[in-house]
Amino acid sequence: MSATWGENIKLTIFGESHGPGVGIVIDGLPPGLQIDMEFVRNELERRATGKNMLMTARKEPDAIEIISGYFDYHTTGGPLSFVIKNKDQKSKDYSQLKNWMRPGHADYTGNVKYRGFNDYRGGGHFSARITTPFVVAGAIAKQILAKENIYIGSHIKSIANIEDRDFEEKDLNKNIFGELAKEQLCVLNKEVANKMRDEILQAREELDSVGGIVETAIINLPAGVGEPFFESIESKLASMIFSVPAVKGIEFGKGFGITRLRGSEANDEYYYDKNGNVKTKTNNNAGILGGISNGMPIVFKTALKPTASISKPQKSINIETKKEEEFAITGRHDPCIVPRAVVILESAAALTILDMLIESRRYNGFK
Amino acid sequence: MSATWGENIKLTIFGESHGPGVGIVIDGLPPGLQIDMEFVRNELERRATGKNMLMTARKEPDAIEIISGYFDYHTTGGPLSFVIKNKDQKSKDYSQLKNWMRPGHADYTGNVKYRGFNDYRGGGHFSARITTPFVVAGAIAKQILAKENIYIGSHIKSIANIEDRDFEEKDLNKNIFGELAKEQLCVLNKEVANKMRDEILQAREELDSVGGIVETAIINLPAGVGEPFFESIESKLASMIFSVPAVKGIEFGKGFGITRLRGSEANDEYYYDKNGNVKTKTNNNAGILGGISNGMPIVFKTALKPTASISKPQKSINIETKKEEEFAITGRHDPCIVPRAVVILESAAALTILDMLIESRRYNGFK
Amino acid sequence: MSATWGENIKLTIFGESHGPGVGIVIDGLPPGLQIDMEFVRNELERRATGKNMLMTARKEPDAIEIISGYFDYHTTGGPLSFVIKNKDQKSKDYSQLKNWMRPGHADYTGNVKYRGFNDYRGGGHFSARITTPFVVAGAIAKQILAKENIYIGSHIKSIANIEDRDFEEKDLNKNIFGELAKEQLCVLNKEVANKMRDEILQAREELDSVGGIVETAIINLPAGVGEPFFESIESKLASMIFSVPAVKGIEFGKGFGITRLRGSEANDEYYYDKNGNVKTKTNNNAGILGGISNGMPIVFKTALKPTASISKPQKSINIETKKEEEFAITGRHDPCIVPRAVVILESAAALTILDMLIESRRYNGFK
Amino acid sequence: MSATWGENIKLTIFGESHGPGVGIVIDGLPPGLQIDMEFVRNELERRATGKNMLMTARKEPDAIEIISGYFDYHTTGGPLSFVIKNKDQKSKDYSQLKNWMRPGHADYTGNVKYRGFNDYRGGGHFSARITTPFVVAGAIAKQILAKENIYIGSHIKSIANIEDRDFEEKDLNKNIFGELAKEQLCVLNKEVANKMRDEILQAREELDSVGGIVETAIINLPAGVGEPFFESIESKLASMIFSVPAVKGIEFGKGFGITRLRGSEANDEYYYDKNGNVKTKTNNNAGILGGISNGMPIVFKTALKPTASISKPQKSINIETKKEEEFAITGRHDPCIVPRAVVILESAAALTILDMLIESRRYNGFK
Repeated sequence: MSATWGENIKLTIFGESHGPGVGIVIDGLPPGLQIDMEFVRNELERRATGKNMLMTARKEPDAIEIISGYFDYHTTGGPLSFVIKNKDQKSKDYSQLKNWMRPGHADYTGNVKYRGFNDYRGGGHFSARITTPFVVAGAIAKQILAKENIYIGSHIKSIANIEDRDFEEKDLNKNIFGELAKEQLCVLNKEVANKMRDEILQAREELDSVGGIVETAIINLPAGVGEPFFESIESKLASMIFSVPAVKGIEFGKGFGITRLRGSEANDEYYYDKNGNVKTKTNNNAGILGGISNGMPIVFKTALKPTASISKPQKSINIETKKEEEFAITGRHDPCIVPRAVVILESAAALTILDMLIESRRYNGFK
Repeated sequence: MSATWGENIKLTIFGESHGPGVGIVIDGLPPGLQIDMEFVRNELERRATGKNMLMTARKEPDAIEIISGYFDYHTTGGPLSFVIKNKDQKSKDYSQLKNWMRPGHADYTGNVKYRGFNDYRGGGHFSARITTPFVVAGAIAKQILAKENIYIGSHIKSIANIEDRDFEEKDLNKNIFGELAKEQLCVLNKEVANKMRDEILQAREELDSVGGIVETAIINLPAGVGEPFFESIESKLASMIFSVPAVKGIEFGKGFGITRLRGSEANDEYYYDKNGNVKTKTNNNAGILGGISNGMPIVFKTALKPTASISKPQKSINIETKKEEEFAITGRHDPCIVPRAVVILESAAALTILDMLIESRRYNGFK
Repeated sequence: MSATWGENIKLTIFGESHGPGVGIVIDGLPPGLQIDMEFVRNELERRATGKNMLMTARKEPDAIEIISGYFDYHTTGGPLSFVIKNKDQKSKDYSQLKNWMRPGHADYTGNVKYRGFNDYRGGGHFSARITTPFVVAGAIAKQILAKENIYIGSHIKSIANIEDRDFEEKDLNKNIFGELAKEQLCVLNKEVANKMRDEILQAREELDSVGGIVETAIINLPAGVGEPFFESIESKLASMIFSVPAVKGIEFGKGFGITRLRGSEANDEYYYDKNGNVKTKTNNNAGILGGISNGMPIVFKTALKPTASISKPQKSINIETKKEEEFAITGRHDPCIVPRAVVILESAAALTILDMLIESRRYNGFK
Repeated sequence: MSATWGENIKLTIFGESHGPGVGIVIDGLPPGLQIDMEFVRNELERRATGKNMLMTARKEPDAIEIISGYFDYHTTGGPLSFVIKNKDQKSKDYSQLKNWMRPGHADYTGNVKYRGFNDYRGGGHFSARITTPFVVAGAIAKQILAKENIYIGSHIKSIANIEDRDFEEKDLNKNIFGELAKEQLCVLNKEVANKMRDEILQAREELDSVGGIVETAIINLPAGVGEPFFESIESKLASMIFSVPAVKGIEFGKGFGITRLRGSEANDEYYYDKNGNVKTKTNNNAGILGGISNGMPIVFKTALKPTASISKPQKSINIETKKEEEFAITGRHDPCIVPRAVVILESAAALTILDMLIESRRYNGFK
């Protein structure tokens, strides 16, 4: 079972790519919250499909239907739920794939786990389609965090071998995050955007796909959030980020690179800034020590594999004939999911951080 | 709150480095299990300290006191609990560190979170000391998995810049795993062991420390284990692995490297082997698709930072004087925690995989 | 937060009485289950309104819209979700009640908890309307239990002072349960049904309401299901039963009456029946010892208070004027909720027992 | 699995009656709490054995060993854990009972559940012995609640047929609760205490046992605590109370009696008292509506069955010989557990209410 997530806010997701719709229940939101639906729609637009050559042509209008928990333009405090109906699905494209197990997809693993009863159309419950309501939830979490002055921003660190520079201190503020969120290929070094675009279009032309890395930062999280061991910030963020389809790696701060430093380099020395605030001179540990925030930015990189759906012919097994067959997946695919994944990863981060922030205040008001 | 972990077996850990002891409660084990205590002690020996120059001189005899759940040489099915008393702690070494926040440690974050009431001696609850009972639990999980023919093995992929080769197919069997477990610096390419040793001793001599990467493999996990999204194998393993102190990154299969492949390369094509078993030609996805196992080995790499405790003088803040001070941490430290971390990471993996395996059988016996 | 329930199957409920609809997500069902929708509709019919004078005239067509988890006439194994749209609500009836706190209702407690943002129309999220999808889930649980030969039946033990006899051994079989389920006033002693009807109609005529007691039995649950302490059968059943609106008491077996017995009377002596099965001569403990089933029927009684909504004028506070006011609740009410509650209580029991049954099989297949 | 309980504070219990000891881990307590150990010992004394003829002669010195979470006379905020070693157990008394299943005990159900591997000595993990650390946890919870001005008190409502009067408004204050806590047979109508004592001694003389009812009240819980449906105050309290061995029924406020009232009588009408506080004229609903507190006292009654262990010969099955045998349980037993159960029930209530109080403050400090 895996439909429900969270300790302090609980998300329950449901739906399949080609069924009636997808949805989410968000439990534990504070009552009285006004949701900026314009912002929610903008966030959805960031993950939306069908906009240009970089993406699948499938159009998902993503009309959000509120079922409960919102009354008189405010959250009620009860479970907030949304359904987003599926509209532009083309089941015919997929039905022939019932028995041919697409490489890199969950077709075979889902078939085994669910004893052949999984909805195989378009990946069914495994489809990234289910990240739509997830982005809605993330957009709400971001609004609550913004009131606490906590912001989340991302840029595409790389597409295939095309690399952007890393986040630097000057990039970590809400204005730049806002600018980045407007770009489809959001990079710090503007010159690489075109190279990335070319790389993606090249892959598309070759009926293939490419992957990449996203770097995400969370700023202004106060010190003292997080837990030792099982609920370290790294544990909870990693767990959520790996829920996003196609993620294969995560690293915090210097990440794998920290293994090449000496302790004297890796340790981030503390100092008091001119306002008496505690800071560290470096931030190799990504603002997290012992699983708990120290007030510095939380920074992490996420590795996304190239889209599994490609139009190039591939070999795989047919579980009915018990033979290998070559097959070309028709239908519409993203040649690169990284641009659309950015907002999904930010949503994952926003929801996780909100959950942990609430946790950190559990004894507020106790003597 | 973070003391309890798990869905299908539940672990509850407790204890501090310099308090009376550390312990664990393991709930949900099957009744009637005979625990091979010799194996448990061997596993503890793998993480034990004080054995040589590579490690801290603190000796931890680690006498395991069973409090409950074991009767007549079998598990009862009720909560199995252990306490391991602390013996060789030297609190004097640490008490002067009450106010000076060690860089790279949880001193400051713990102080903020717990409002100054945390046990600061030796890191208190944040100490790696708490991984002792965790290894006991892992050793028990390994025994249950072994009955299912599931084995876990690791090697040190790198120490600082000294690199071992990656796991290859020929390495992935229980005999080689057994050989590796006997080595303190467990590597595949035997020639790098001495270089790693030199690197560690060099750091020690310079009152500094080094980090490294561990590669871990889980073999014979059947297809169909794991869940989509929130409880993907990657999510659960990553969450647990990041609970281990000093971990800063994790990647599955090709990991970050997969972002540089084309989809046609990254997708692992399925085939039937001569026995009719489903296999993939490559294993870039580490045996996991859509969060669920496909029967291929689960392989992941973990990045461990250099030991935060170093004897070299460092600058940091004194939270009482509100000033920066230079300080050299006295006491005994590992110049590199990687060799001792191997068995802890394996324990984390064993416990996670056992939890997910039980989950995957929830409907066995239902019509 | 309280929208999600369960360890081995997870339910997430959402919705309000006068919002767009109510719904449920059921996670953890086995894949490949064919749902008998006719049975589901029959169960819904048992809780349905508007059928006669004993009930509220509000008609709830209860058209079940499946959103996910059902494909090709079988459960997929992914989250199964339903939405039932609200249709016949009359919000005008309720809007005047925004500030006048109905006695016996959750108006005031909900207003305080949710800081005035709760949807007050018709009780909002507190409405028994939300038990509609709950009955759908219960009907599915009953179908799975029936395959295991486990059945649940109930009768109305009392309405006000009119009492039916207790369940006897001869009543505890699926045929009699089936007969009882067809009756609106399901009693064992058929003669009391008319008296109960008169009692209810009398209360209705006097613009008042009456309560009652339901006795429920679960048969053929094998021995060994349940857990000691925190997850005793009594704990889990009681927790779920008290989730049903209007419940104020529960007792198992002899219940409060057992306090008047001597130990030698209360203890149920074991014997082997002619087939060698373990039985007890009496069943004062309701088939549960140490929280775990012993194979005898689980029997419990539930106390339901009289409907809080009555047409008689009542005094209460107006939280706007901060004064007491007399008011008569208009709109449509059940003069007695007991007849409709029967199927809701059975649903609660079915879901709880299914959850515990799955739990009890967790180690099936482990060596 | 059932060793861990709670959402906002987590308890993990372990231990058996005749093993090395019993213990508890309490996770989620606020840091900086000074525990009044004198009060803890007094509470333990209230459940202690061996004091007089009303109780088992087994002496349990109950020396509390703190393992973690307490440093410098304050809670650290990390997991607080205790072990209480078993001392006066006489395993010989019990070993002959390995195969004879005591009526009214968990011997048979535990044997089936745990496939014969349960520790059968003295009930093993099912023993009320495990309520010792539970009372320690309850005593700590009471101290936190007292700072919030929330108090819990109880009296014995009945022993067999000897009845005390119900709680009245005048009884519901901390002074009277304090007086009651000092009495072994704590009653409101002092005259019934002797009759109860006689009833217990009479049963003891006849090698038999008696049960009874405890009434418990929680005062000054603010309005707005609790959740609708699955986490109603009734659900959570009932679930915890049924974890206490021997409990067979619970009712809130008027409880089963409310089923005989008309709605116009059962509904508790609100008014403003002279200080402008919201009150109800009656409290039939025990201060709970829609699962949430309304500020009135929470009052409930708990039914406890007569002690299952009696010295009178009883018939039961021998699972080895597969025959029925008559047997007299030797050893030391309470002729009535009610007097000792009072503090256990209060502990259960204190822990539950603390958990829900923390929950109710989750959004304190959020804008």
